[in-house]
Amino acid sequence: MEQKSVLIVEASARQDGSLSRMLASRFEHYWKQGRPHDAVVHRDVGKAPPAAINETWLAAAFTPAEHRSAEQERQLSLSDVLIAEVRDADIIVISTPMYNYGMPAALKAWVDQVVRINETFDFDLARGDFPLRPTLNGKCLVALTACGEFGFEQGGINEGSGHLVPHLQTVSKYLGVEQFIHVGIEFQEFKDARHDASIRHAVEMLERNVERLMQSLNACVQP
Amino acid sequence: MEQKSVLIVEASARQDGSLSRMLASRFEHYWKQGRPHDAVVHRDVGKAPPAAINETWLAAAFTPAEHRSAEQERQLSLSDVLIAEVRDADIIVISTPMYNYGMPAALKAWVDQVVRINETFDFDLARGDFPLRPTLNGKCLVALTACGEFGFEQGGINEGSGHLVPHLQTVSKYLGVEQFIHVGIEFQEFKDARHDASIRHAVEMLERNVERLMQSLNACVQP
Repeated sequence: MEQKSVLIVEASARQDGSLSRMLASRFEHYWKQGRPHDAVVHRDVGKAPPAAINETWLAAAFTPAEHRSAEQERQLSLSDVLIAEVRDADIIVISTPMYNYGMPAALKAWVDQVVRINETFDFDLARGDFPLRPTLNGKCLVALTACGEFGFEQGGINEGSGHLVPHLQTVSKYLGVEQFIHVGIEFQEFKDARHDASIRHAVEMLERNVERLMQSLNACVQP
Repeated sequence: MEQKSVLIVEASARQDGSLSRMLASRFEHYWKQGRPHDAVVHRDVGKAPPAAINETWLAAAFTPAEHRSAEQERQLSLSDVLIAEVRDADIIVISTPMYNYGMPAALKAWVDQVVRINETFDFDLARGDFPLRPTLNGKCLVALTACGEFGFEQGGINEGSGHLVPHLQTVSKYLGVEQFIHVGIEFQEFKDARHDASIRHAVEMLERNVERLMQSLNACVQP
């Protein structure tokens, strides 16, 4: 079995009682049962939010590597580490709550540190109206989410108000993601039977998706 | 003329060359010409990003004000200031670039600090499937945006990938916003004639929208 690398990014501000962390922990449990020799790396942006990018960061990112000052290199050092983690990963798990209908600021800060010119994408106006091209590829993203409300899907009572999963999907292209899996828990703030059912369903779906994903990995390396 | 209050939130990481800041500065110029006695408050989250909310913040926000510890009050002190600025504003201007297809992390951090239980919304399960209700009202939000690409609208070449304006629109409800105006610049990374035209068009639309907004304010106070 070819060794693979899993990166687990956790974005909940809470350590205790976080349902998105519970899903990530289940994922890791199933994964280690099926593929005990894979590398698993953790990046907890909920606990330690990356800084929002600033003017110096932007100037540094747009300066060719060989012309960067020591200060510019320092500005990009966290970004370098986070990008290396993404580059090394075959499977990226992003475990996140929905805060105010989108990503927590800490997760968006991670995205803004990771998506970087000449690192995760390159830019060429010769490509016409689509000048950006991801430079990574072949990865699978597993988005594990939890939200207080429900019905963000098409036809749902909150259709059009859920900006977490669609945004992750758009951004995932620039992380080299070619396969996107989403498992989510809803109804968290209702604490009712629908919530309990949503948790049970998510855990089941997670287990099933992990199995299928491991099968496809095994299939890929067979002659 | 009744005095009104304007809050200008600026989210670009850049001070120089920022088109979203240019739009905000134009807005302020037009506004001061037409309504020189209004109060204008600036909140630069691009320059000084608010912290991402953490576990202590969440626990503090969900603790009744009279039972909060000194540490919990300290955790909420920035949130208190940012909420007061929103509460006092009749017009909220949010000037922001699109970063990675959504809000900059710094702006999302502002949103997460501002949208707070028993401050900007209350929660009651007796309301059924919509337990959250905004407690502020009557405000107008002017979103001034700049993005590198284009065509995020329905039928556009990047339809479904623009998560900045729809997310602001969803969140605006919890800022007490009842009127939403958007003026945006596109094509920034192409630096071509389409970009120049987009800037000219945005500046024109901004001037026209400011005029209309000032007329409606004047109309409201007439008997």
